[in-house]
Amino acid sequence: MEKIREQRCFGGIQGTYAHDSTSTGSCMRFALYQPPQAAHGRVPVLMFLAGLTSTEENFTIKAGAQRVAAELGLALLMPDTSPRGLGLAGEEDSTDFGTGAGFYLDATVDPWARHYRMHDYVVNELPELVAGAFPIDLGRIGVSGHSMGGHGALVCALRNPKRFASVSAFAPIAAASQCPWGRKALTGYLGADEQLWRGWDAEALIRDRGYDGSIFVDQGTADQFVEVQLKPHLLQAACLEHGVALTLRAQEGYDHSYFFIATFIADHLHYHAAALRA
Amino acid sequence: MEKIREQRCFGGIQGTYAHDSTSTGSCMRFALYQPPQAAHGRVPVLMFLAGLTSTEENFTIKAGAQRVAAELGLALLMPDTSPRGLGLAGEEDSTDFGTGAGFYLDATVDPWARHYRMHDYVVNELPELVAGAFPIDLGRIGVSGHSMGGHGALVCALRNPKRFASVSAFAPIAAASQCPWGRKALTGYLGADEQLWRGWDAEALIRDRGYDGSIFVDQGTADQFVEVQLKPHLLQAACLEHGVALTLRAQEGYDHSYFFIATFIADHLHYHAAALRA
Repeated sequence: MEKIREQRCFGGIQGTYAHDSTSTGSCMRFALYQPPQAAHGRVPVLMFLAGLTSTEENFTIKAGAQRVAAELGLALLMPDTSPRGLGLAGEEDSTDFGTGAGFYLDATVDPWARHYRMHDYVVNELPELVAGAFPIDLGRIGVSGHSMGGHGALVCALRNPKRFASVSAFAPIAAASQCPWGRKALTGYLGADEQLWRGWDAEALIRDRGYDGSIFVDQGTADQFVEVQLKPHLLQAACLEHGVALTLRAQEGYDHSYFFIATFIADHLHYHAAALRA
Repeated sequence: MEKIREQRCFGGIQGTYAHDSTSTGSCMRFALYQPPQAAHGRVPVLMFLAGLTSTEENFTIKAGAQRVAAELGLALLMPDTSPRGLGLAGEEDSTDFGTGAGFYLDATVDPWARHYRMHDYVVNELPELVAGAFPIDLGRIGVSGHSMGGHGALVCALRNPKRFASVSAFAPIAAASQCPWGRKALTGYLGADEQLWRGWDAEALIRDRGYDGSIFVDQGTADQFVEVQLKPHLLQAACLEHGVALTLRAQEGYDHSYFFIATFIADHLHYHAAALRA
């Protein structure tokens, strides 16, 4: 693992690191915020999964999360959104597939299957790598994310309830099989058989497997993607029908940007910190 | 004036606007955060001047300032750092002169003299424009800034104590005549006569004119530019000798980045809000 940089931030350390990933067969970068409390022992960690076109940097510099994380003694772990620079045909052709658009799933269709394994990466490899190198408590991990990363957070938590003790999302793609972004990605990474998509779709996972935990989602009412791509009402209906505790807050006038995330990130961090301390 | 975008943020409005500036003879962009209180009447405003290579956007997305500004009922006004796209010879040749490096002064040397008049722009034109179009109280303006913008904030306040009721800075270029960045800019914009530089150098202004107000500066001890470019001890010595109230905080381990600004911006906003309410 290579240290790219470390910078003091709210009394803790904001770092960016690179390593050769076995999950993706590529060099991956991630960012980690260690709160001041990490100097004295292992701390719980919130993984934040970013949206289309983002890297490990976006949430790190735009959300203002470190301030609250430092108060709560919570580490923040920001993976990249895909492998990069593999030279695969079509990898760089669009903003919603390939580079910057890994959708936090494990691809099964060539040429993506060898490298686009972001689910295995964020669920298994990265937490274990980080807990081996930093004072992070592998038994106290929460997951959150934005847009494509909100989809990733929900799917990761629903598929791996023992790994993630808490889950929240900002403006998630709530039913990937039922929107253009999701259908393009699921077709490209998994093939045309829609039955195989259900394991990578938050709404379908609720219907197929249920969930014993609770889910916390914020959605802006002025979000330009809510009707065509995000469809939180589908997640809400599935949770209602299957008895899953969902708090879905409609935030009046907020759009899809990091100004929306920055406004409500403190609520999410407090939510995760309470769950991870229990 | 053209509205580029407006976005909800901490209950207020984060906007970006463009207008044809008479000061610079060019189209200028600025960002303005209106706190929720601006819906009910005129509010005080803090102008934040950014550093080399920045635009009106950097502080807007990286400092996390809107949260505290919303609590305090303080507007935030972020100008660009220079005119842009004028086609002047040498305008784009370096990161520390020309585009993105206006140094908040009024140039007297051709070809810069016609357009590089950022001092007149931020002291006169922009506040008056903004107060004419938004519920901003022109009688309650504070100024802060970072690096080149810290120099700008100090020089603007020292030259115009009636315009700016409060001043602070993050890692400012404290004595522009005595560092490579400043000497290059002052030579290029004002010519070789160093006597003419003294009106655009914070340390020299303290010595030549004094200041009745107080000055608040944060400086990281791990800042890579502190010894060669920033030299806060020169400002400190001048303030001591001339009886100017300076609070200079050395922040252990912090560098020159926005993680440093984000960590301490709340202190600066509270400082300005207290002064502007008085």
